[in-house]
Parts: sequence; structure tokens; C-alpha cells
Amino acid sequence: MAKKLPKRSEDYSKWYNELVVRAGLAENSGVRGMMVIKPYGYAIWENMQAQLDRMFKETGHQNAYFPLLIPQSYFAKEAKHVEGFAKEAAVVTHYRLRTTADGKGIEVDPTAKLEEPLVIRPTSETIIWDTYRRWIQSYRDLPVLVNQWANVMRWEMRTRLFLRTAEFLWQEGHTAHETREEAIEEAERMIDVYARFARDWMAMPVIRGVKTPTERFAGAEETYTIEALMQDGKALQSGTSHFLGQNFAKAFDVKYLSREGKLEYVWATSWGVSTRLMGALVMTHSDDNGLVLPPRLAPIQTVIVPIYKTVEQRQAVDAKAREIETLLRNRGIRVKYDNDDKYKPGWKFNEYELRGVPLRIAIGPRDVENGTVELARRDTLSKEIVPVSGLDERVEKLLESIQHDLFQRAKDYRDAHITRADSFDEFQDILETKGGFVLAHWDGTAETEARIKELTKATIRCIPLDMDTCEEGRDMLTGKASGRRVLFAKAY
Amino acid sequence: MAKKLPKRSEDYSKWYNELVVRAGLAENSGVRGMMVIKPYGYAIWENMQAQLDRMFKETGHQNAYFPLLIPQSYFAKEAKHVEGFAKEAAVVTHYRLRTTADGKGIEVDPTAKLEEPLVIRPTSETIIWDTYRRWIQSYRDLPVLVNQWANVMRWEMRTRLFLRTAEFLWQEGHTAHETREEAIEEAERMIDVYARFARDWMAMPVIRGVKTPTERFAGAEETYTIEALMQDGKALQSGTSHFLGQNFAKAFDVKYLSREGKLEYVWATSWGVSTRLMGALVMTHSDDNGLVLPPRLAPIQTVIVPIYKTVEQRQAVDAKAREIETLLRNRGIRVKYDNDDKYKPGWKFNEYELRGVPLRIAIGPRDVENGTVELARRDTLSKEIVPVSGLDERVEKLLESIQHDLFQRAKDYRDAHITRADSFDEFQDILETKGGFVLAHWDGTAETEARIKELTKATIRCIPLDMDTCEEGRDMLTGKASGRRVLFAKAY
Repeated sequence: MAKKLPKRSEDYSKWYNELVVRAGLAENSGVRGMMVIKPYGYAIWENMQAQLDRMFKETGHQNAYFPLLIPQSYFAKEAKHVEGFAKEAAVVTHYRLRTTADGKGIEVDPTAKLEEPLVIRPTSETIIWDTYRRWIQSYRDLPVLVNQWANVMRWEMRTRLFLRTAEFLWQEGHTAHETREEAIEEAERMIDVYARFARDWMAMPVIRGVKTPTERFAGAEETYTIEALMQDGKALQSGTSHFLGQNFAKAFDVKYLSREGKLEYVWATSWGVSTRLMGALVMTHSDDNGLVLPPRLAPIQTVIVPIYKTVEQRQAVDAKAREIETLLRNRGIRVKYDNDDKYKPGWKFNEYELRGVPLRIAIGPRDVENGTVELARRDTLSKEIVPVSGLDERVEKLLESIQHDLFQRAKDYRDAHITRADSFDEFQDILETKGGFVLAHWDGTAETEARIKELTKATIRCIPLDMDTCEEGRDMLTGKASGRRVLFAKAY
Repeated sequence: MAKKLPKRSEDYSKWYNELVVRAGLAENSGVRGMMVIKPYGYAIWENMQAQLDRMFKETGHQNAYFPLLIPQSYFAKEAKHVEGFAKEAAVVTHYRLRTTADGKGIEVDPTAKLEEPLVIRPTSETIIWDTYRRWIQSYRDLPVLVNQWANVMRWEMRTRLFLRTAEFLWQEGHTAHETREEAIEEAERMIDVYARFARDWMAMPVIRGVKTPTERFAGAEETYTIEALMQDGKALQSGTSHFLGQNFAKAFDVKYLSREGKLEYVWATSWGVSTRLMGALVMTHSDDNGLVLPPRLAPIQTVIVPIYKTVEQRQAVDAKAREIETLLRNRGIRVKYDNDDKYKPGWKFNEYELRGVPLRIAIGPRDVENGTVELARRDTLSKEIVPVSGLDERVEKLLESIQHDLFQRAKDYRDAHITRADSFDEFQDILETKGGFVLAHWDGTAETEARIKELTKATIRCIPLDMDTCEEGRDMLTGKASGRRVLFAKAY
């Protein structure tokens, strides 16, 4: 029997790391800060991708692909963007290696130096707007609604699997519009798509909001965000959508001939979610026994484990198990019949619990006689004996219930962890004892925001759009007047 | 009206480049040798990916993801591999940029130099086998059947859209096995998957074969290939599958405890196809009017173009067109109703011809009265008036016919361009006048192979598996004895 996971209550961070590795989601590679996404983890990511891609296409977007490497000079074109992104980046300076003088190793060939260094994309606004200049001449060419699935790189010093890695996978939408209003509408549409995806597929409640100027994307005029709450009381920014104004159009000289015959700069948005969502998924639902996966994203929704001792028992159980497998598959359920005899049933029970398979069906000789199976739920760890007759319909409904219950449980937890604070003492106390989101007044200045962060490590996650927080009050620290509460939390 | 494409007969290369750009498949970016894959081109690639991915999963493979950057020292571990891949590669040497002294630009920060340079993967055997060492301990862990969809980079000096670009997209399968036989079986299974995909989806006939030692993948013991013939008589290597022996297991020390309790090195394969297939697709079917796409890969299988003058006509035509759109969509046909009134029907006809949409339905006021439409085939450029009644079934069957006919046409061309040569004069003559594949005797030495390449630019594409070429003969150049003919061609 494999050793148990660390408990969440004892070391949440250690629990997370061990779980991610042992459940087969990801692991560190031999390259600093870069992870290997393992097959089981990648299968969950593929399910996420498939659904997001559908939602992007339903909202009129098409996929395309832009270069991995961006000339260094492109970053210098948008003043704020360069501050935010060009600094901690992987830089390609040479294009050849050569054998060392002793003939035993290889080394960078100093004669093969690039005239201009190339940066591995940390995000693609610059290379894409350099391309859009060629695509857009007239209002007839607008809107451009393009998305890219890609790898990106940011040279992070402290990395954690899925949450913060030097290389990660993501999608980045980049759209171009005739008017300011249309671009804002697009940015809002996409943050809504993300919120719906989090709710309906990840069973993860999120709060939609806008970022303060300090927390905005480098080069954006407005950044929309969805913020989720993890089980340890810390917030996790799970997706962002940016209204970029005309900043990139001006930096890359992208103009269009308007319906009125005038030459105008194009309006832009960009929006993205990444493999960080995998971390959010793990930390929203899982428990001390392992992963808990929402059925809609689970690579295996139901596993069937046969139990037998003799050869005769094995044959009878096997026949029945295959029948059930077919029954479930015909209902469109992702089912795995695990008849691998290298492992014992007890080992398999633990393994699928660790991997978060929503439902487990165990079937033994007595079940075959009685026309029953044992059905176990991963989320509640409850078990019951049920008849084989009608099992497919039962499983289908149960999977829907689990999806619903997981969301409700996460939402109850989240709602119980949104607390109002009216003084700075109270604010600190909540952060240190209870954790979670804190709704408090803020005077609207970057100075106060920075001071609060310095004193408490909490940041303004967003000015919420999903709750009415408008009311008169006074900033916790400065006592200056404030017209609405904003949402604070410590965050990943 | 846009200007016509160059004719294939006049300048095949120019025709190809202009077609790829103007049909919306891809274009050069601002970064040397790197392309932008445009939405229409990417949609075809997505259709290819979806089908290949299904075929990989049906043969038991799972997807995963490995790091983009590989430490330079990894390449030095496999002696042949380093020769083949570590040389012309993009090398990351620094991890930070800084503002220049004048405050106006940015530059590489010399203090942020990596201890060991990192290479952007040209292929992932090294990083993956470094990972497999952690995954594989016992025969219980085998086989490992993993595929990765990724971008890779090879610093090519002369690039062409899709055919040869510094960055390209591909999939790379990497499998690990207990025995030599099992690995060979896997390598052969995957070249068969590629051949089936080419035939059934791309409507592209290919010849399966094995490469000569000179043309093998760097680090392989056997390389299987599929070779296709382009319309200009040049061959295009379209996919390869490699039996890697124990070379990478030895280089990265990957051993497993066998069923007999012995510690053994693992056996390996790798296999891949890339966005190069897009170039193959274009050059197999297209004509002087533009793209010709096989229906199974076409993003739009049928386009409906309305024709009208008055408002009343427009309403009547629009109603009928929408009805037909629904009819076709319900049959699972990818249909586009183009009612954009910014463009005239004539413009649209040209545009969809250029983009290779297999079927075009035009509908005007008289068609509405008569209950007919005009149906035009892209491949034959033929048109006919057909009744709306039964149109969905007709379109469905016609799409199947087109898929079949495209394959047959390409196969007829290919078969007519496999020529036997028995003397070197004859060989040169065929290459220079007729082109295509030439079956000729070869003495089996690398020296002769190199001389033939030097004299004619033709290479041995493969020792074919799909045709019986065993017969006694003599090498064209050296006159030495040969037991079988091999397949030569000039190639992309």
C-alpha cells in the first residue's frame, strides 16, 4: 500500500504538491521551473481545452498560430507592456551549437550570434499586432476574432506545478474592432465565457470583477478577472480578459479605413486562461484521500473493478463487468473496466480514489448471483449496493448530481469565506484566522493599496461585478471617503 | 477582381507560395523563417489533428506534454543524435532583458546568463527519455505509449511556408517497450496509421518504405517513411516512424526489471508528422485556380451563395438558402451560407474557388421559382442545375465521390510517374524530363548513394514496402550486383 498523502490541515502546500505528482497530473522535469504534464493530467487539460474551444467558436472565434519567438525590439514599442513582460524572459541569442575543442561535448558557437536577440513569447500581443497591420486595412476586415492555443514562457524564480511554472500552456484570444464599445463588449463577453466554464465544467464558483490600475495587464486600459477561492483561504486568479484600447494599434500602427472614410486606429482585446486552471481544479475539490474531479472533466467518469478468487468466479464476474461496461459506454459515459490482474482490488480502490474518478463500480461473485453491484461515490465516499438493472441511468444521473454537489459545496465554502471588515484590525484578524475574501473600503489610491499589501500580503483581487458593494464608508487605513467595498485576499 | 495566380506550368514554386498566402493558409511573419498559420489554414490543420489524434488513441496512445527547452548537455548523450539535431538550433543563453543606458530601448542583461544554455527542442527524444527514467522501473510500467502535440524549432537557412520553416507544429510519439519485436511492431503500426491517414483523409497516395542508413533519423536503427509525389514530379517525405533500438535507453539509463527478474534496457520508437502535411495537401490536389481540398479535411465543405437584385428577390432567395443550409447542416455537412452583402456573387465564386471549397451552391430568383439550385464541383469545375428536393443526399454523396476521385486522380498521376531505369543515362533523362519516382538498382553503399545525389540531386526516398522490387540487377553507376530496386526521386 502506498503511503498516505500529507493532510491538508497540516501542510496544504505539501499536500498539493504530492497530490499533483502521485495522482499522475504533472511532475518537475530536469529543466529548472519546467514541468512535465503527465498523461492523466493532460487528459483533463484536453477536456478543458475541448470545451473552451467550443465556447470560443460558438462566440465567433477562429484559431490561428503565431511565431514562438519575438524580436526584442517589438517589446519596446508599447511602453507599459515592456515593463511588465520583457524583463524576466527567455532570450535566444545564438542559432548554432558546435563540438568542443576536445571533441567530447558541445557548446554555443560564438560565430552564430543573432543580430537581434529573440524572446520566447511571454504573451503574444506584440507579434500578433505586428501581423494584424497586414490583415487590417478597412472596416470590412473587422472584427478580427482570433484565438491561439500555445506554450508561453515567463522566467519565474519560485515555481509550483501548474500554479507558476516557467513554461505553461494556455490560450490567448486577440481581437480587433472598429469601436471602443465593441471591444469592451468583447472583453466582457469573454470574461463571462470563462465564468460560465468555471461554473459549469470545473464546478468552481468565481467572482467576476475588474482589476485596480496597479493589478492591470501591462498595456491594458481595463482588466476583467475571475477570482476563485481555494480550500486554504487563498484566492486564485483563474482567467483574465483585457480591454487594450488603441495601445497596441498605435504601437504597431494598425489603422483601418472607417465606414465614414476616415483612417482610425483599431480597438483591441486579449484574454486568456492557462494550465493554472489545473491547479485551481485540484485545490477547489480534492481531499486528504486524493483528487476529486467533477464528472464533466474527468477522463474516467466511472471505473469498474472486478473481484474474484477462483477461475470460475473470474469468468462470471468478467462477463458481467463487460456487459456493464458496454451499457455505460452506450450511454456516452467515459468508463474504464480495469481487469489488469497485476494489481489487487484494494490497490485499485486506492488508486482510483487518489485519481479522483467520480464513481467506482465493484463487482464480485455474490453480486453476479444477486444481479447487483457496489457503487461508490468519490466525493462523499459513500457506498451502496444497487441492482444492475437500470444501472446506466442511475450512473448518468449520479454523475450529474456529483457535478452539481461539488459546485454547491465549493460555493457554500466560498460564500462562508466572504467577510466584511470595517477596521484595519478586523481586516488583519480575518486574514490571519479565517482567511478567504474580505470586503473592505479602500480610498482608491495606489499608495494605500501598496501599503495594505506590504502590511498584510493581501491584494485587491477585484472590484466585484457580481455583488453590489456600493455603499458609503471610509478607507480602513487612511480614513478617506470610499463609495464601495472592494474584494481583498491573499492570493496564489 | 483579384489578379490570377501564377500558372503551375510556368513557375510551380511561385504558384505554391502565392496560393498559400492568398488562400489564407499561412504567411511569413516579421521573424526570419517563422510563419503565421492563418485561420483558414489552421482550420485544416485542426481537422488533420482531430483525425490523427483519434487514430493515435484508437491504437492505445495518450497525450502528454514535455518541456520546450532542453539542456545542451542532454544532446551530447546520444552520439548520432547530437550530430543530427544539436547543430542548427535556437539557443537560450539569458533569462532577462534590461533597459538600455539611454533609457530608450532594451537589451540582454549580461548578468542574467544561464549556467547551461538551453536548446529549443528540435525533437524531444532526449528530454522525454530523461523523463522515462523516472517512469519506468518494471515490466509492469511498459509499454509507455505517449504522444505530444507541440511546436519544434530547427534553424533552417532556406525556408518555405509549411515545407521548411524554422518553427513548425507537429506531433511526436515516443514509446517504450519490453522487447525489440514489440518496438518494431509499434514503429510499423504507426507508419501504417500515417499511410491510412494520407490515403483516407488527405486523398494522397503514399509509398511506404524504409530509409537507407544515410537517410535515417539521427539515433534510429530503422526509419520507416511515407513518400508522396507532388505535381511537379518531386517527392515529399510526409511522415516517419523510427525504431530506436536501445540507443536512448542507454544514453539516459532507462532500465526495467523484466518478467524474468533481470535488469534490461528499454526498447524505443518515435514517430511524427508535421504542418509539412499542409504543403503536401496543397501540392497534391490544387490547380491554377487555387486550392482543391478533399472534403474530409475542408473546413467548409459546401458554400451557399445567394444571387439577387431586388429586395423582394433577396427575401425569397434568402429564405430558400437558409432552408438549404439547415438541411445540409442536419446531415452533418460543414456548410457556410455567405450572405455578406459587402461582396458580389462573382467575387465570392472566385474566392471560394481559390479557397478550395469542394461544392458551391448558387441560388437565384429563378431557382427559387423552379425549386432548383446550381451545384458546382471545385475539382472538375463542372456545374449542373439540380432540384432542391433530395439536395442533402446528393451533396453528401457528391462529397464522397469527390474525396474518392481526388485520390484516384492523384494515384493515377503518381502511378504514371513511377519509372524504371536500367542505366544511369536513362535515370538522368527521366529525372530531367519526366520527373517522379525512379526505380533503379543500387549497390547498397553510402558512397554510391552520395555520388548519385551529387550528380543528379536525386536521393533514395526509400526501399519500398508496398511494391515487390526484388529482382537481380546491377547498380546503375558501379555495375555491382543488386538484389532489388530502390525508389529514387528529387525531393522537397
